[in-house]
Amino acid sequence: MDRRKFLSGTGVAAAGVAGAASSTFPTPAISQGRKQLTMVTSWGRGLAGVHDAAQRCADNIVSLSDGLIDVDFKAAGELVGAFECFDAVSSGQADIYHAADYYFVGQHPAFAFYTSMPFGMTAQELNNWYYHMGGRELQDELTEIFNLKTFAAGNTGSQAGGWFHKQIDGPEDFDGLRFRMPGLGGKALGHLGASVQNIPGAEVYNALAKDELDGTEWIGPWADEKAGFFEITKIYYTSGFHEPGPGLSLAVNREVHDGLTSSERKIIECAAAEANVWGLAQFLANNGAALQRLIAAGVQTFTFPDSVWDAFGEASQKVYDENMSDPLFKKTFDSYRDSLIKSAGWIELSGNTYAQQRNRVLGF
Amino acid sequence: MDRRKFLSGTGVAAAGVAGAASSTFPTPAISQGRKQLTMVTSWGRGLAGVHDAAQRCADNIVSLSDGLIDVDFKAAGELVGAFECFDAVSSGQADIYHAADYYFVGQHPAFAFYTSMPFGMTAQELNNWYYHMGGRELQDELTEIFNLKTFAAGNTGSQAGGWFHKQIDGPEDFDGLRFRMPGLGGKALGHLGASVQNIPGAEVYNALAKDELDGTEWIGPWADEKAGFFEITKIYYTSGFHEPGPGLSLAVNREVHDGLTSSERKIIECAAAEANVWGLAQFLANNGAALQRLIAAGVQTFTFPDSVWDAFGEASQKVYDENMSDPLFKKTFDSYRDSLIKSAGWIELSGNTYAQQRNRVLGF
Repeated sequence: MDRRKFLSGTGVAAAGVAGAASSTFPTPAISQGRKQLTMVTSWGRGLAGVHDAAQRCADNIVSLSDGLIDVDFKAAGELVGAFECFDAVSSGQADIYHAADYYFVGQHPAFAFYTSMPFGMTAQELNNWYYHMGGRELQDELTEIFNLKTFAAGNTGSQAGGWFHKQIDGPEDFDGLRFRMPGLGGKALGHLGASVQNIPGAEVYNALAKDELDGTEWIGPWADEKAGFFEITKIYYTSGFHEPGPGLSLAVNREVHDGLTSSERKIIECAAAEANVWGLAQFLANNGAALQRLIAAGVQTFTFPDSVWDAFGEASQKVYDENMSDPLFKKTFDSYRDSLIKSAGWIELSGNTYAQQRNRVLGF
Repeated sequence: MDRRKFLSGTGVAAAGVAGAASSTFPTPAISQGRKQLTMVTSWGRGLAGVHDAAQRCADNIVSLSDGLIDVDFKAAGELVGAFECFDAVSSGQADIYHAADYYFVGQHPAFAFYTSMPFGMTAQELNNWYYHMGGRELQDELTEIFNLKTFAAGNTGSQAGGWFHKQIDGPEDFDGLRFRMPGLGGKALGHLGASVQNIPGAEVYNALAKDELDGTEWIGPWADEKAGFFEITKIYYTSGFHEPGPGLSLAVNREVHDGLTSSERKIIECAAAEANVWGLAQFLANNGAALQRLIAAGVQTFTFPDSVWDAFGEASQKVYDENMSDPLFKKTFDSYRDSLIKSAGWIELSGNTYAQQRNRVLGF
């Protein structure tokens, strides 16, 4: 997942930004007892999964409030561009955004924790931390700085390791490998000597087909199938280290949020939570079915050898270390890591061990 | 998890049932535009996790509706007994229940699918099926028969394999083993020759201590630690086959539900969904931390050998087969199994493989 691949279907949004520039007063429009909240997103309307989660949040808010809160939904490019939604809501130009908060690490590196960290939490581990082990409170501390109040509102599940022209036998195979991977994962891969390419999403297929890329990560089977990479290579690494459970966020301008009634605030919270559980299930249900079709089309699934995972772990730690001088990043990392250590053991020894044995016995 | 262990802290409820017997008109009390819904549960108030999920549903409903729906919350025994809540809501004596629907397999065997099946779905797989692969629609078909409208509203996560006096080396070790396991899992274990004991929850500790039991399952580390079994034996099988991801249900009397406005119906739906994601995270967060404490207290964790898992799988299939003559059970099984096959592959090859490698590298 990256900034560019979510732009599909959206136009240049500069005109929209300029046109809306006068509406920066951070109070939602109110008429006849009804409030209208303007919601912007990082997703084009055609973008399955992430756009669906955003739309579901909006629909939930309208329905839960019996229409007393109306949501004026603007997909990426319709009011502001995909990555301008943060500034738009922080400033009060819009009231709510739905996005992946690691797009905004330029604002603060700690935003990455609420989407995904390389070698970090799975979706379930993220929920454990978020709802019960301090994650939500730390998110509140971070987002208050930017005049936002933010909620977990979707998850793509663990993203695939990616498509390769040749199999990977050890970490040395990444040395000089021309691989597309954005974000912190790409930084980690750079530490392994990879020539990390951040080419626009729309150009990845052709670059891989023309051998200008040795490989690319994308999202997961549901999206990867649509992108058509299986037409170019059949070598698919299903498990990746770079985005093990990317969460999506719903953020409300904090002054707007504080001006809502307690019931309206609960409506926002539960609208997001419903989209959180519904959205992850949507990705996983569709990924599973798509993987079956890819395999039927001749795709072979692979997992990296242990030596590669060892190298991924070391490289990810270097990326963490590069940000530890920021006190809030360090404080958030400590909480996140403590929660991860507590969560990980039981999950592996119970449900994951069970699923592995059941799959073996039943031949899934 | 069983019927009896959730009775802790509740008294005999017969008086309550008799006292409320006249209020069987299936319309909620309405005064000054406010509706009052009576909610009954299968849980005693002191019961962490499951009671918390029920209470959270109730609190969400009140808060989302700005108090226009008031919930008169009755824990087990306060209006009706723990296992009478189904009949109470079906008949209209109460308006809502929160329970584990496999308590009601006596009403229809297909209720088990919405809690847990031996060798069935994990919590995430259940969500995939429920929200996106036909589960919710089949639940609707089932619950309509009983005048109910039901929603997923919590999950305990995969339950532990249990506590044993001696290690298990093969399926033959279950022959004659005096083991406590209620429900369909217990039936499956009976097919392995175990002497399945369904003794009341409050007596299990003493029976294990006095060697009247060779072992017992319970729930998971959070609850098992409180029950104190680690004081008797240190042999703990973390992964079990019998309840791999038990879902909790919120059920509304269907006439009451149909009499709600569309906004009020959405409030019930989202109140339950929020409790679903919040509740599972609560169990897993607390189980992880409790497992660390149990290990610090000298508990050794084990996993059953492959031959035992093979036997669990065969025995579970026998339990399914015993119910296949019921058309709705068969139809539900086919949908459930199809969804499971689609879900299982991707989850194992992506997130579970990732988590296993990350845990190995980081030494979790």
